[in-house]
This record gives sequence, C-alpha cells and structure tokens, in this order.
Amino acid sequence: MFNIPTVTNQYSNLIADKINHKTKPLGALGKLEQCATQLVTLFSQNVADEDAFKTFTPSITKPTLLVFAGDHGVAAQGVSIAPSDVTSQMVANFVSGGAAINVFCQQLGWQLEVVDCGILHPVTAPSVHDCRLGSITKPLNTEMAMSTMQVQQGFDNATQLLQQLSHNGCNTIAFGEMGIGNTTSAAALMAAMLNLPAQQCVGKGTGVSDDIVKRKITVVEQALRLHKSQLADPITLLAALGGFEIVHITGAMLGAAEQGMAVVVDGFICSAAAMVAIAINPVVKDYLIFAHCSNEQGHRLMLDALNVTPLLQLDLRLGEGTGAALSLPLLQAALGFYNQMASFADAGVEQVVS
Amino acid sequence: MFNIPTVTNQYSNLIADKINHKTKPLGALGKLEQCATQLVTLFSQNVADEDAFKTFTPSITKPTLLVFAGDHGVAAQGVSIAPSDVTSQMVANFVSGGAAINVFCQQLGWQLEVVDCGILHPVTAPSVHDCRLGSITKPLNTEMAMSTMQVQQGFDNATQLLQQLSHNGCNTIAFGEMGIGNTTSAAALMAAMLNLPAQQCVGKGTGVSDDIVKRKITVVEQALRLHKSQLADPITLLAALGGFEIVHITGAMLGAAEQGMAVVVDGFICSAAAMVAIAINPVVKDYLIFAHCSNEQGHRLMLDALNVTPLLQLDLRLGEGTGAALSLPLLQAALGFYNQMASFADAGVEQVVS
Repeated sequence: MFNIPTVTNQYSNLIADKINHKTKPLGALGKLEQCATQLVTLFSQNVADEDAFKTFTPSITKPTLLVFAGDHGVAAQGVSIAPSDVTSQMVANFVSGGAAINVFCQQLGWQLEVVDCGILHPVTAPSVHDCRLGSITKPLNTEMAMSTMQVQQGFDNATQLLQQLSHNGCNTIAFGEMGIGNTTSAAALMAAMLNLPAQQCVGKGTGVSDDIVKRKITVVEQALRLHKSQLADPITLLAALGGFEIVHITGAMLGAAEQGMAVVVDGFICSAAAMVAIAINPVVKDYLIFAHCSNEQGHRLMLDALNVTPLLQLDLRLGEGTGAALSLPLLQAALGFYNQMASFADAGVEQVVS
Repeated sequence: MFNIPTVTNQYSNLIADKINHKTKPLGALGKLEQCATQLVTLFSQNVADEDAFKTFTPSITKPTLLVFAGDHGVAAQGVSIAPSDVTSQMVANFVSGGAAINVFCQQLGWQLEVVDCGILHPVTAPSVHDCRLGSITKPLNTEMAMSTMQVQQGFDNATQLLQQLSHNGCNTIAFGEMGIGNTTSAAALMAAMLNLPAQQCVGKGTGVSDDIVKRKITVVEQALRLHKSQLADPITLLAALGGFEIVHITGAMLGAAEQGMAVVVDGFICSAAAMVAIAINPVVKDYLIFAHCSNEQGHRLMLDALNVTPLLQLDLRLGEGTGAALSLPLLQAALGFYNQMASFADAGVEQVVS
C-alpha cells in the first residue's frame, strides 16, 4: 500500500559541503541547517547527476495547506469544551476567511483548501472538497469509530487530492484539522501506538477542565480495552479509534510522499496521524518536517518517540494547521541561505575551522 | 538619561476582549497572543481615546535591522575561532549582500543597515554608517575596554540613528552584531550584572574548543577582578567590559524606546546589552520583544533572569541579528490575527468558555 520512493542521499556530501562553506561558523544556523538539508535532499531526488546538481536551485513551489474536517461521535460523551456543531461552524468560518488559519495562510503564502471528510452539517461552497465518509464517526469507546472500508475510502480520497496538487506544481504540503473531539481520538491512537497509559496521552485539548480531562482518560481507557484486538494493524487501528479527518491526514501524508512532496506536520492530531502513516510505510518519515510542538500534554512525548525536534514551540493549541502554517518562512529561510549566501571564497572571508 | 515614556495599559481591557472573542479557544494562540498584546499596547500609546482605539489598526511599519560591528582587543588572547580581521571581512560581506542576515532581511522584509562602531579595517561604502569609537577596544582583562566618554559617544550616535529612523516611519527595530571576541565581552557583562561565576556565563560562542572555553573563563575572571570597583554603575561597567557594538546596541535600545518603537532582541550579545539598558532605565523593558534563545550556554540563564520567554529556539549561534530577523513573520502573524480574524459573533460560531 502506497508506493513511496525511498529517499536517496546521493548528494549529501555536496549539500553538506555547500552549507559548510557558507560565510558562517560550522553549524551556526542550527535547525535551519537540518531543515535545508532535508528540503534539498527531497527536492533533488530526480536531479540527474552531480553536474546537474551543481546548478540546481531548490525552491518551495505552490505551498498548499489542506484543512481536513470531521465530526466525532465521542464528542457526545462530553470530552470537549464545544459541541459537535462547532466543527461545521468553523468550516463555514474557513470558507468565509475569518479563522486563524485563513489569516496565516494569506500572510505567509499558503494556498488554503478545505476538505469535508464528514461533518454534521455540510457547508456548501465551491471551495470545499467533498470527501465525506459519513456525517460523524461512532463513539470510539462503545464501537468501532468507522469501518475499514471507510478508512480505505479516506486513503483513496487523499491520494487523489495529492496527485492533483502535485500535478499542479505543489511540492510542499501541510495539513490541518478541525473536529470537535479529535484530541480524544488522537490520544487513543497515541496510547495504542506507543503502548502508554491513557493518562500520559490525554491532555486539555483546546482548554477543557480537569474534570473533562478525567472523563477523556476514562473514555480512552474504555476504547483501548474494547478494541484491544484491533490495535496491531494500522488500518483496523484507524477504524477503531480514528476520525474521518485523521484518516484523510494519514492517507494524505502517504499520498504526498508518493508524489515526492515535503510534508509539514502540524501539532498533536497530525503527529498522531504521522505515527500511523509511519506504521503503514516507514519510508514516509523521510518526507516529514515537524513544524511545532504544541501545548497539548502528550505531544512532546510523541515527538520524542518519533525522535524528531520540531522547528517551533509557540504554545499553540488551536489546530487548523496553524503551527505548520507559521513554519513556512523558516523553510523558505533555510532554502534562502542555502541558495543565496556567499561562500568564504566568494566573499573573501577567512574560513577558520575550530 | 534617556527620556523613555512609561508604557500605559489604558486599552488593555479592550485588547484582551478583542483577542478573547476571536474564533478560537481562549489563549489557543499561545505566545502569539502575548506578542499581539505587547505590540498593540506599544503602537496604541498615542491613540486618543476608546473610540479612536476601536478603529485603530496596528501594524509594523518600515521594520529595520541595524547590524552594529566592533572589534575587541580581547580577541588577541585567543578566545575566538577567528582573528579580528574577520569582523571587517564580514562587514564587507554585509555590504555586498552575501551574509545570512542579508538573505533573511531580504526574504522577510527588513530594511538592513550596517553600522561601523569601530572595526580594525573600515569598509568604505555609502551603506555603512560611520559611528567609529576607535578601531578596536582594549583587552578587558588588562585595562578598561574603553573610556566612559566613548560610551557616551556611542549612546549619542545610537540615539541620533534611532531618531532618524523614527522620523522616517520605522516603528519596529531589531539589532544585530558582528565582532570577533564579543561573546567574551557579553559573558563578562552578564557575570557582573547577575553576580554569577564566569563559568556559568561563558559558552562556546560560534563554536570554540573546550580549551578555548577555559581560556575565556580565565579572561572573564581576570576582568571581573580587575574592574571590581567599576561594575555597579552601568556606564563604567560598559566602559570596563563592553564592546563598541555592545555600547551602541545598549544606546539604540534606549533610543528606540524613547521613540516608542518595538525593539526585537536577538541572542546572547543583544540580551546582555538589554540587561545593561534595563539597568540604565528599567522602563525600556516594556518595549523589548525577545526573539530567540540561542545555543550559547548562558543565554537561557540570562533570559530566565530577565523573566522573559523568547519566541524562537532554533539553536542559532551566529549573531548578526539572525534570530531577531527570523521572528518578523511571527510578529506580523500576531498583528494579523488581531486585526483580521473574525469574532464569534461575526462568524456565527458558538462561543463556549470552559
């Protein structure tokens, strides 16, 4: 499933050499150097040979942020500050341009697209992709959230979306989500994948009380017990504990990697999807750039388990892809220094290697 | 010295109310909310009344980054990976556009200006401000780095530069530095200001060996002993332990605050200057936005002592103002959400307060 090209490091010496001869101390651009290395590696996969590489100028083209929305049956169990209706209301807000993600995408240069993966009250607008797998998942603590056929349908939808975007020239993609109740689903996926107690995976989401956190923990524990036999296989895992938007994000990460895109990973929900995607096909990991460590308890644990260090730590707990969106200038700065900075020889600066 | 207007919080309730009614959970934009609050507070100091405030749209205008360069006599003691000549070579690199700070300023929208505060080999170019206090400081471990008259001259230079920038419409300023040996000077200032042992303040700078770190510690200890009687007063402190560029940055922070500007503080060197500026006039602190926690050991300690949390932590250890430069999109995003996001009422989204 998902035919993702293995990322080859054929130009890694040339990339390191170019970065190390820029007019700066070795390694002095910190995370931007790692980011540049990863982006240049990804974007140069199809460069024919070393001569062609030497004149190759990597760049981010048509960066696109897809916000996937889905409703969660588990929300009715009182695990969120808001009722499920708010998912559809926020989708309408995305369409009319009033949400945080609209502002950030417009300011920073992302093309923003909205995908209805299954919300209670569909928002009719030409700008919303219809990828509905239903109107709401089933409560994950009492039954399977969805069928494995729905998971497969979500993967197919996502793959098609990504093929189209790649065809249109997009080489850098980010995903956001909107779904009341989805931190409960993501925490359950995390607990199952990392074999951790619910308590370490459940957090305050967008800001619930301690009582609601307790209820979330109970709900996740129930779900893990109920679906114990389904958790080893990533597809049945998603069917048992996932959400329509989380299924699409998982498929979209894999589909984007199939197209050779750089995938910018947002917060807690998207990182949970990334873990499932890696379980399905580990090659996807080389395509992932982790943008932000959110304020959600458990996210740091998840990032540590993935052995990744995100670019930003802004204490966001909003979702929508906001953390990923805000990282774009850093990705551009990473390629900017790679492409444009002078070398010691160019600038006539003495290179001193400590 | 320095007539800095006290920052009044006259519209703090209106600002909080506006942020809290945006279509997002309370506080969900984390550090960007604090950043928006600070910027709107600063930029609305001269707004006449609440009615005027309601139609006021704060924005960053003509953001300017000044790189101050100076040479350090202490560099001859082998405390750096590079010889003092590299300071002038890098200034030439700034002039020809090849350094990291050039790339970042151009990408992100900063106007970049270079200030020669006193370097060994002056770079003649129309784009370099001549604010030379000499060609190099004296070694701080054997004599006063400069005279108090030179400190005063640096403050005067900086004040004039900031008056001119403000006159031209700049309301947001950042400072960077270039000066081989300047982490030694900054570590000495830090040790003196925070009354900490040299060992806790000295780090690897741009990447020196452990042996050089030991030498730096010895040099700082010598300097602190030698100038013991000069350390209580911020002016004699700067004369004893500072650098020409550090003196200018200190004065420029105070001069920018006099003009009501938002001041974006870069890494270790600039934070040391900020501590001295606060000692001279504590009101300046309200104008400071801390952009980046660098990889320099001691910087975290300094930020903790200042009780501030920087926006970024990218493991940079380059200087030049790169950390400050990279924060601009976040400052713009903070004002962007404040100005443009829909309220719950605008968007027809249920507001649920947990």
